[in-house]
Amino acid sequence: MKLNDTIVALATPAGAGAISVIRVSGPEAIKIIAPLFVAKSKKPLEDQASHTIHLGNIMNGERTLDEVLVSVFRAPRSYTGEETVEISCHGSPYIQQEIIQLLIRKGCRSAEAGEFTLRAFLNGKMDLSQAEAVADLINSENAASHQMAMQQMRGGFSNEIQKLREELLNFASLIELELDFAEEDVEFANRDQFRELVSKIQTVLKRLIDSFATGNVLKNGIPVAIVGEPNVGKSTLLNALLNEERAIVSDIAGTTRDTIEDEMSIGGVGFRFIDTAGIRDTKDVVESIGIKKTFEKISQAQVVVYLVDSSQIAVNTERLRQVRIEIEKIKNKFPLKPLLIISNKIDRLAEEEITKLKKELDLISAMNNRAQYLLLSAKSNTGVEELKEKLLEFVNTGALRNSDTIVTNSRHYAALLRALEEMNKVEEGLNHELSGDLLAIDIRQALYHFGEITGQITNDDLLGNIFANFCIGK
Amino acid sequence: MKLNDTIVALATPAGAGAISVIRVSGPEAIKIIAPLFVAKSKKPLEDQASHTIHLGNIMNGERTLDEVLVSVFRAPRSYTGEETVEISCHGSPYIQQEIIQLLIRKGCRSAEAGEFTLRAFLNGKMDLSQAEAVADLINSENAASHQMAMQQMRGGFSNEIQKLREELLNFASLIELELDFAEEDVEFANRDQFRELVSKIQTVLKRLIDSFATGNVLKNGIPVAIVGEPNVGKSTLLNALLNEERAIVSDIAGTTRDTIEDEMSIGGVGFRFIDTAGIRDTKDVVESIGIKKTFEKISQAQVVVYLVDSSQIAVNTERLRQVRIEIEKIKNKFPLKPLLIISNKIDRLAEEEITKLKKELDLISAMNNRAQYLLLSAKSNTGVEELKEKLLEFVNTGALRNSDTIVTNSRHYAALLRALEEMNKVEEGLNHELSGDLLAIDIRQALYHFGEITGQITNDDLLGNIFANFCIGK
Repeated sequence: MKLNDTIVALATPAGAGAISVIRVSGPEAIKIIAPLFVAKSKKPLEDQASHTIHLGNIMNGERTLDEVLVSVFRAPRSYTGEETVEISCHGSPYIQQEIIQLLIRKGCRSAEAGEFTLRAFLNGKMDLSQAEAVADLINSENAASHQMAMQQMRGGFSNEIQKLREELLNFASLIELELDFAEEDVEFANRDQFRELVSKIQTVLKRLIDSFATGNVLKNGIPVAIVGEPNVGKSTLLNALLNEERAIVSDIAGTTRDTIEDEMSIGGVGFRFIDTAGIRDTKDVVESIGIKKTFEKISQAQVVVYLVDSSQIAVNTERLRQVRIEIEKIKNKFPLKPLLIISNKIDRLAEEEITKLKKELDLISAMNNRAQYLLLSAKSNTGVEELKEKLLEFVNTGALRNSDTIVTNSRHYAALLRALEEMNKVEEGLNHELSGDLLAIDIRQALYHFGEITGQITNDDLLGNIFANFCIGK
Repeated sequence: MKLNDTIVALATPAGAGAISVIRVSGPEAIKIIAPLFVAKSKKPLEDQASHTIHLGNIMNGERTLDEVLVSVFRAPRSYTGEETVEISCHGSPYIQQEIIQLLIRKGCRSAEAGEFTLRAFLNGKMDLSQAEAVADLINSENAASHQMAMQQMRGGFSNEIQKLREELLNFASLIELELDFAEEDVEFANRDQFRELVSKIQTVLKRLIDSFATGNVLKNGIPVAIVGEPNVGKSTLLNALLNEERAIVSDIAGTTRDTIEDEMSIGGVGFRFIDTAGIRDTKDVVESIGIKKTFEKISQAQVVVYLVDSSQIAVNTERLRQVRIEIEKIKNKFPLKPLLIISNKIDRLAEEEITKLKKELDLISAMNNRAQYLLLSAKSNTGVEELKEKLLEFVNTGALRNSDTIVTNSRHYAALLRALEEMNKVEEGLNHELSGDLLAIDIRQALYHFGEITGQITNDDLLGNIFANFCIGK
């Protein structure tokens, strides 16, 4: 991998804004920019200290391209560990292009996706799992995924792996040392201590592997299936949930997000709402396909919200009976899945109708393993807060709150699974009193998979795959 | 206008990128951020010098929001002239929001559009026309508009106005001084010198006012009407012109622009191509409305391109006759407008057909005040370069090349017109030997209009209007 050249890229989002930052990193960064930059102070850029900012003009020959601020970071005290210059220019796409093109003409190369972070990794500024966390951090959309990425970027995860790896490496060395003295039948590595370590590593690996399900769900949003007939108020409910969050977002100008219809952050946790067609009992073939799909969606969800129209079931006994059957069906098929019954449109009911409705719902709840219910009016925004609280209650965010290490990256997950497999082989070997040379092979394999996570073991293909998912400029 | 608070805004474009910059300006900028920022060096932010950069974490209580770089600019050595801090964080919209919301909770106010530049103006870091140029600079899309904005931002325009204003102010003071000695009938202001100054000012004002047409056209792109029947290859021609430029743009990843069908930059000058329906002779009412519209579009254009299909007119004498009539019509109606006849699709002609076609076109050219023509094949990209050169030739960019001051801002244009009007009144007053007190009124009015441009004369409404057009964060 070629790393001795100097790269350039736009580091801020493309498009027009107040300012844009162009990042240049590599041995020639300062040397290339110095002759193009006329500082107000007249002092040459080469003579400036690290972590200082300088006002001046970027010149293309006689032509002033822009008045800019130039930040100097001296190797190794930069993000990449190399000589780095950041040019803060006016946020015009035209000016960005002109400056980048000028720098390319003067000897810079267009950076590839993630190349700045790749260099940071290769220069030992961070390990591989930390580098991967940088991309996760940029993509984080809610408090939960942000916290997991931040924890990983700050090394919480790799520290744990690193420690286990070192202990294991220690034993591996001792066992390999035994091989040198094979004739003499000595045991440098205490087998009981080793057995203990293997067991400890297995426990940690299992915990990390189990955390992946939680981590993945938190990272991608918790899937919530909404089951309900048309016109019970599904979209009004989603809007009611969404509007408050969007109000917060739009408070800050320039941060408006694209409208997301069914993904939202509630109390810092991402939720994905999955609309279903409902499960009304039917003999119609087409409808029964719809019902099959609904069940499929429920099986993928972490939480099921069953939505009914209060004004219907309060007066229509036949509809109430159907609701009862449908809820039973869901509970029978998914007995362990959290289910929340929401009786919407209560604004349409009189006081005494609500009392009667509550009794019916108490009965349904009692018959279905104490399924929870909530009276609500999405339209008049009654009960929406309670719904949010209930949704957060359903989610087991215990792991997150305890700030235990959570695995969110499927590459890490795969490596952990492979490492566990090897550790199980080591355990089996110990049980069968396998010879040191055979044990050593499995230990080396486990070490290899640990090393894959933190990046001690790596290759160009792997790095290429990882950093291709980064944005340009990072 | 309240200016003693501390404002915050995202300064880089919204959305996800490698990094984002959050800008904070005001007396409390450092005081608000210091307790939220834990520097790696542990040194308090308050003790840091201007123009230095510091690595550390932004904390929301115990929770790390992000690892950031914090740049410190001490008043008055900042863009706004106030204490300023720029936080360079990871480019996640979630993180941007969290940090901005934290700063707002801690006492910052969301900046309004252009408020940083407004503060720079109010703190005397730039005059009003320079502040306006900042917005123009960000919006500049080609070399011509960029150069004009850069010139204005660097004070080229306001220096000229400023100098005239001072000379005029000097005379105004002398004339007003005469009023104090009205009884004694003295003349402090030499009327001949004054007459000379008035004439000089009038000349400059006229030149600036005249430059507005050029400036406006350069700023918004030069309108080129394309007159031609369907299927003569209009869109192929536009694509041939556009493709090369787009190839340059897409060289730099992350700078891809939205597809612009009829606006493009050729040799650093913006062109707007206006499609017309052609002007075929007709008795059809609907078609004749189309022709009327074509003539309207031609009248708004700076250049007319008349496009024909070579393979048609080479073999079809009737069509050739029509072409001749149409070109005559255009030349009769717009005798002074540059007209370029383009004979497209020459790749379909044999050598001898081309020779014959050239003779026909020479004839047409001779009959139409030496209208220029060009044989071209948009499909095989023959002659496209020549077309670009011709288009640039047609445009009078002399003013731009001479780096004369060009007025591009319609507010300045209006003020200059009003100033000229007042100067004409002053001249008239001098010719009629008007008394000093009456002269003084008109001079003051002219001075007022000069002051409007540079911002010596201003009011909240005017400033509100100007800065509302800025983006947030600038």
